[in-house]
Amino acid sequence: MKAIAVQPGAGVPDVIKRPVPEPAPGEALVRIHRVGVDGTDYEVIEGSHGGAPEGDDRLVLGHEAVGVVDDPTDTGLEAGQYVVPTVRRPPPGTETNEYFEHGEPDMAPEGAYVERGIVGAHGFMAEYITSPAEFLVPISADLAPWGFLVEPLSITEKALEHARASRSAFGWQPDAALVLGTGSLGLLTAAMFSAADDFERVYCLGRKDRPHPVIDIIERLGATYIDSRETPVAEIPAAYEPMDLIYEATGYAKHAFESIDALAPNGVAALLGVPSDWTFEIDGGRLHRELVLHNKAVVGTVNSNRGHFEAAVDTLADLPDWVLEAIVTGIYGLESVDRAFPNATAHAATADDESAGTPDDDTTIKTAVEFTAI
Amino acid sequence: MKAIAVQPGAGVPDVIKRPVPEPAPGEALVRIHRVGVDGTDYEVIEGSHGGAPEGDDRLVLGHEAVGVVDDPTDTGLEAGQYVVPTVRRPPPGTETNEYFEHGEPDMAPEGAYVERGIVGAHGFMAEYITSPAEFLVPISADLAPWGFLVEPLSITEKALEHARASRSAFGWQPDAALVLGTGSLGLLTAAMFSAADDFERVYCLGRKDRPHPVIDIIERLGATYIDSRETPVAEIPAAYEPMDLIYEATGYAKHAFESIDALAPNGVAALLGVPSDWTFEIDGGRLHRELVLHNKAVVGTVNSNRGHFEAAVDTLADLPDWVLEAIVTGIYGLESVDRAFPNATAHAATADDESAGTPDDDTTIKTAVEFTAI
Repeated sequence: MKAIAVQPGAGVPDVIKRPVPEPAPGEALVRIHRVGVDGTDYEVIEGSHGGAPEGDDRLVLGHEAVGVVDDPTDTGLEAGQYVVPTVRRPPPGTETNEYFEHGEPDMAPEGAYVERGIVGAHGFMAEYITSPAEFLVPISADLAPWGFLVEPLSITEKALEHARASRSAFGWQPDAALVLGTGSLGLLTAAMFSAADDFERVYCLGRKDRPHPVIDIIERLGATYIDSRETPVAEIPAAYEPMDLIYEATGYAKHAFESIDALAPNGVAALLGVPSDWTFEIDGGRLHRELVLHNKAVVGTVNSNRGHFEAAVDTLADLPDWVLEAIVTGIYGLESVDRAFPNATAHAATADDESAGTPDDDTTIKTAVEFTAI
Repeated sequence: MKAIAVQPGAGVPDVIKRPVPEPAPGEALVRIHRVGVDGTDYEVIEGSHGGAPEGDDRLVLGHEAVGVVDDPTDTGLEAGQYVVPTVRRPPPGTETNEYFEHGEPDMAPEGAYVERGIVGAHGFMAEYITSPAEFLVPISADLAPWGFLVEPLSITEKALEHARASRSAFGWQPDAALVLGTGSLGLLTAAMFSAADDFERVYCLGRKDRPHPVIDIIERLGATYIDSRETPVAEIPAAYEPMDLIYEATGYAKHAFESIDALAPNGVAALLGVPSDWTFEIDGGRLHRELVLHNKAVVGTVNSNRGHFEAAVDTLADLPDWVLEAIVTGIYGLESVDRAFPNATAHAATADDESAGTPDDDTTIKTAVEFTAI
């Protein structure tokens, strides 16, 4: 079968040949339909995050997949059922550990997991994959064409769950939410926040010039676009309003700390970006005082578990078609893999940049690779 | 009656004469037994935090009180009932607001409250006070001599509740807790953490030389003393172990950020200090990444509500007498108020210092003023 692999830090994604995998006991064979591309893939390609399985110099990419059960073997799944695979697996040579047993592999520390398509395990960009049924989340046939968006949506489900939990000791009633970042995860999150009635007002911060299709999406959602070149994060409360929730999806480290100033009293910032080292000055006394006197919280979250995937399937069903069609700017077959990874060579230059993964002059938002048409 | 007042930023606490207050409808008249002194009092004295009520140049101090109902009027309380007053009240000229209505004045932003003895309202260091019954928390007669510790304990009850809430989206099982600070709040918290079975191992960081009564208390609690001069916060995981919970009670702003490194995966740092502005460098990229990849949280908390006071009464009952006797190093009558405030003149020099309020060569831990003996 064909698969898309990369030698992390030493090339661009390439189509390779691999044997069709044999399901082990308890595993189903899944024929892959589509696999999304995101910023983490670019980090893996450039070698700044993740890595190939031990003993392999190439990694099959892909962690945002949707497929269809081809051979259920003994799993109890039905052939023809569309499924979205979760990403984390127990490390090689282990069957499980406490985090997997509790259904919380997303809370496992390094060493207690591998991530398919990211670190230590081959991903889903292949014609076929195998997976234990517990890591396959069912999705209806009509949602399957967008099923590769379930994984990124699940990341936001987790972030929102943890942010809400952090505010659950009192009667929190958030009105205003700010999404930092206008990449595909930022836009999906803005769409989620706008569709769900969770927030009265949604803002999205980026640095794109008008006219731009991304700004069009934000405004069609009923959200407000904030240009970070005109209004730095710390000035947002004065220019717009203080924010009850801030969702950081830029990987721009200063945002993590500037968010403390942009929060309303009792607000929470959920951090999701994975920046490189970067030393800079902050007024740590003021930020510390702000956190305390205004009961503010900062919560880092990574990955997601099966419950978040299941919630994301429901969320996906509630998103209007127009926004999915606008965010997914291209679905490419194996003959044009380079078009699915338009930033594969340019990416390193934009690390730690507010628009990492989405150069400003680019109108690409979200791409996916199609292995088998439905 | 006699009261202890200060002109914030312009003097030391002084005994003044004031009329005995008249209970308004719904208020009880409370005869004050004892009032504790803490770091916030010193901040008020030096003028760096809080301030007198409008139109007054002096503020009656005191927010950690225990007293006895002298005249219940129409409140339904009984004369002779010991009570601990909570601290926040609606601003002058208002009867209530949403935060007070929901029982969450601790979550009110500035402008939506005054704090008795701290900002905008006279405190409890007086022979008599009046208060609506809703702000008076009953305490048994046998606990009343230590009742002035309920307010500081309630601060930790709230911090712990918010820290736990932030970890409630998954199965958090904390083993190791670190208290930053060996002032009276730090020691009370270390005692609380050691007495409850919440944590297997408790650590307390300070910078005192052996032998020292504070170190003796920490070790008698079964906790581990960490000297910050030998082991900076960020090096604690390597020297001891990574911490599931960090409780910051130093007001030393670098601790807020160093804590992120000292946390175990999935850990939370509760911040309680109120530092002044202080600009310094951090590796913000690394700290941001740590928060995200290890699901860490930082939660600021201030003040406490009636529920936290009620929990603190129960906690106080569970603390061994020896620790209360060791932490309370002096109870002074009105004739020796200066001894109750031993740091009133020296305080300004230690602001933003790890041991703010408790100079290293001092063996004073917690003092209280006694107005009427039981």
